[in-house]
Amino acid sequence: MAAPRAAALGPEPGSSTQTSHRLLAYSDALLSIIATVMILPVAHTKIHPDQKLGESVQQLLLAKIAVYLMTFLIVTVAWAAHVRLFQVIEHIDDVLALLNLACMMIITFLPYTFSLMASFPGIPFGIFLFSVCAVVIGLIQAVIVAYGFYHPHLLNQQIQESENQNFYKRHILKIILRGPVLCFLAAIFSFFFIPLSYVLLGLVIVFPHLTRVITWCKNKVLGRRGEEEEHHSLETFTFYLSEPLSKERVEAFSDGVYAIVATLLILDICEDNVPDPREVEEKFHGSLLEALSEYGPNYLAYFGSFVTIGLLWFVHHSLFLYVTKATRLMGLLNILSLAFIGGLPLAYQLTSEFAEKSHNEIEAIQVSCVITFFASIFQFAIWTTALLNEEETLHPFARYGGKEHAFMFAKLALYPCVSLGAFFLTCLLSEFSTAIFHLMQIVIPFAFLALRIFVRISLTAIK
Amino acid sequence: MAAPRAAALGPEPGSSTQTSHRLLAYSDALLSIIATVMILPVAHTKIHPDQKLGESVQQLLLAKIAVYLMTFLIVTVAWAAHVRLFQVIEHIDDVLALLNLACMMIITFLPYTFSLMASFPGIPFGIFLFSVCAVVIGLIQAVIVAYGFYHPHLLNQQIQESENQNFYKRHILKIILRGPVLCFLAAIFSFFFIPLSYVLLGLVIVFPHLTRVITWCKNKVLGRRGEEEEHHSLETFTFYLSEPLSKERVEAFSDGVYAIVATLLILDICEDNVPDPREVEEKFHGSLLEALSEYGPNYLAYFGSFVTIGLLWFVHHSLFLYVTKATRLMGLLNILSLAFIGGLPLAYQLTSEFAEKSHNEIEAIQVSCVITFFASIFQFAIWTTALLNEEETLHPFARYGGKEHAFMFAKLALYPCVSLGAFFLTCLLSEFSTAIFHLMQIVIPFAFLALRIFVRISLTAIK
Repeated sequence: MAAPRAAALGPEPGSSTQTSHRLLAYSDALLSIIATVMILPVAHTKIHPDQKLGESVQQLLLAKIAVYLMTFLIVTVAWAAHVRLFQVIEHIDDVLALLNLACMMIITFLPYTFSLMASFPGIPFGIFLFSVCAVVIGLIQAVIVAYGFYHPHLLNQQIQESENQNFYKRHILKIILRGPVLCFLAAIFSFFFIPLSYVLLGLVIVFPHLTRVITWCKNKVLGRRGEEEEHHSLETFTFYLSEPLSKERVEAFSDGVYAIVATLLILDICEDNVPDPREVEEKFHGSLLEALSEYGPNYLAYFGSFVTIGLLWFVHHSLFLYVTKATRLMGLLNILSLAFIGGLPLAYQLTSEFAEKSHNEIEAIQVSCVITFFASIFQFAIWTTALLNEEETLHPFARYGGKEHAFMFAKLALYPCVSLGAFFLTCLLSEFSTAIFHLMQIVIPFAFLALRIFVRISLTAIK
Repeated sequence: MAAPRAAALGPEPGSSTQTSHRLLAYSDALLSIIATVMILPVAHTKIHPDQKLGESVQQLLLAKIAVYLMTFLIVTVAWAAHVRLFQVIEHIDDVLALLNLACMMIITFLPYTFSLMASFPGIPFGIFLFSVCAVVIGLIQAVIVAYGFYHPHLLNQQIQESENQNFYKRHILKIILRGPVLCFLAAIFSFFFIPLSYVLLGLVIVFPHLTRVITWCKNKVLGRRGEEEEHHSLETFTFYLSEPLSKERVEAFSDGVYAIVATLLILDICEDNVPDPREVEEKFHGSLLEALSEYGPNYLAYFGSFVTIGLLWFVHHSLFLYVTKATRLMGLLNILSLAFIGGLPLAYQLTSEFAEKSHNEIEAIQVSCVITFFASIFQFAIWTTALLNEEETLHPFARYGGKEHAFMFAKLALYPCVSLGAFFLTCLLSEFSTAIFHLMQIVIPFAFLALRIFVRISLTAIK
């Protein structure tokens, strides 16, 4: 037990140096909660049962959903920058741990300032607040980098041994401060000319991808590839799409999102659906069972969303068991999948709120199907992207012709197929839409087990 | 990259066997969220500003706080059983992953059924529901054990090689099913004689500790120790207080609790404190800054609680860096510390809700100090417990006379001292209580850095 512990204390055991593992796990947990927080105002929007959901969705929810999606993307951009940063700085000490906590505190404030900005698009102060948050985050990260390079034993082994430490330092600082400088300009311009501020803030998200596309095009036109790219691949801290992200952190961040999303509905149920003792006495003549049966749809919504999210986690887990390297494109697809998963509790809550067989209910069920479809199809896209470069990104068993290839394909294809099927069935047989939907929820867990048996039998039959 | 991956796929790479690492991390995340969920009804209790907090606390909050604490303990009992279970079963396959998800789903329902039981102590159906949940959880865990022993390659290496597999199986099943059998009886008796049900349910929590104390007393009286205890220590799956828990899982569970508690207030702020554009236009003449200044106390409460929880996490992280083994007693102390940490957002929210210098505000601040004190003193207790058996539980640097011993002591003593000091200061100088409290919040992060420098200087001075 003592040996691995000593190793875990870092390159200089006994000094204050520590591995960053637990700090990063904690940061991932915080960031995944923050990324999904803006779904709450969407889920808690009260829709009057008499209103038609079609209009309500368009008017009430659309703005909030947009805020949720944008916040999710912004926090994941901050998360990706955090991943890159701690790929350079591999060991921490007390100062870095405290600096990181300060950085986290400001990041957790981003969703709030963003929703202020979205609610008051014409008021400079909203833009100013958001930009200032982003600038402060950038400054703290710059201090972390400076501190790391001042204490080189904290750095990545490769950079530690490199002779060009100063080159790396300048390069990393340039990338980290690019966004905050744009935000700083946005903060200043917010008081003079607001549209320019929005353009500048938009640039922050688009810029890394833009430069990537431009260099890719340039290389394509000029025909230079091998030498140049190999040079680039040494600089671990860039934004290029094909570079690997830390697989552990992608998993940890995804786990956090799945866990918080799976429990979002139970938080509401625990708070709102404990009946009042007096009401039970008066209205239901003391029968708790009758009082609880009123909340039936809520329980159904909870079990439905927990099962769906649990199984999508299960598919994700199965997939990443065979992924050896997560490229940036795979990371992007994963984040898009997670963004849709964040919408699932909302969709299920909608299905529980309407009286049976109303027009609204069918629409709510269809929205649930669409969200499930997109969440699962992006998971499928991660796999196909991995297959394109399977030598590097996949375990041999999951590649074409591998032992687990067919089973993985079936697992990943199950949810897109079922949700698409359920969607079209509700269109055709609108009277039975609720029954179809609940049947889908109940059948799918068994389908996974049946799939395993089916694939095994067919594989042995082929042999 | 391929080598560690292949290893991670378990003892038979290519088969469906997988390491349980990620499944357990996901379970820990779910369980930690569920353990803290019942703090929400406490935190959202509306207290009228004119009411005296002293009475309100006693009447309104006390029942809810009791429910929160009991739920926390019940979920942590379920968590501890889960840890034990997956110390026996070290590898998983698809069936076990799905069974575990089913188990998680029922566990997430425990807080709700418990609060039903607490709201309707005299109605059989509440007790019945809670007991049924507990029975179902026990049954699923029994199925997991049976499945694991039917596929021995999934088991712990030690048990796999043992000749007494059947003995282990019976022993584990006995321990797992003891609780559910008591709950089953409680469910039946709930319809005949309710008090007996409560006694039976109480037994479930007390039983493991009771048997431990009884065997300890028996050994003390009869004088048998060495041989007997060594024999017991081979049976990894028991409830004895001195046996090690998986340190990784203690850390993961704690991280989850710290992360969800740190972000609880921002969830509320994001949802409730975005001002309505129309209101800003009418009431504040379009000035966003003025509208936001109304929420000032909320921001202060958020930053205060984030800083305190962040730093308590930091202390926990520093401590567990030097802990090599977590005994059951240390686990228990850790859980008590976490239970108080769950109360922090509530305390901070109380401080933000009252007008300045009212009697209520001083009481709210004192409650905050008391909660902080208990959360940190239990952390200190973990350390002292570890020191009692330092050869086994602590890294050499943290033991008596170790390089980091003095610094660790100072780190752990900081919060108990400061919170106790703040408490007595607010008693003496009640007029300045708010100022004292905010000063405490701002000074502490710098105190940690100053501490590091101070300890270093004094150590070199001694030499």
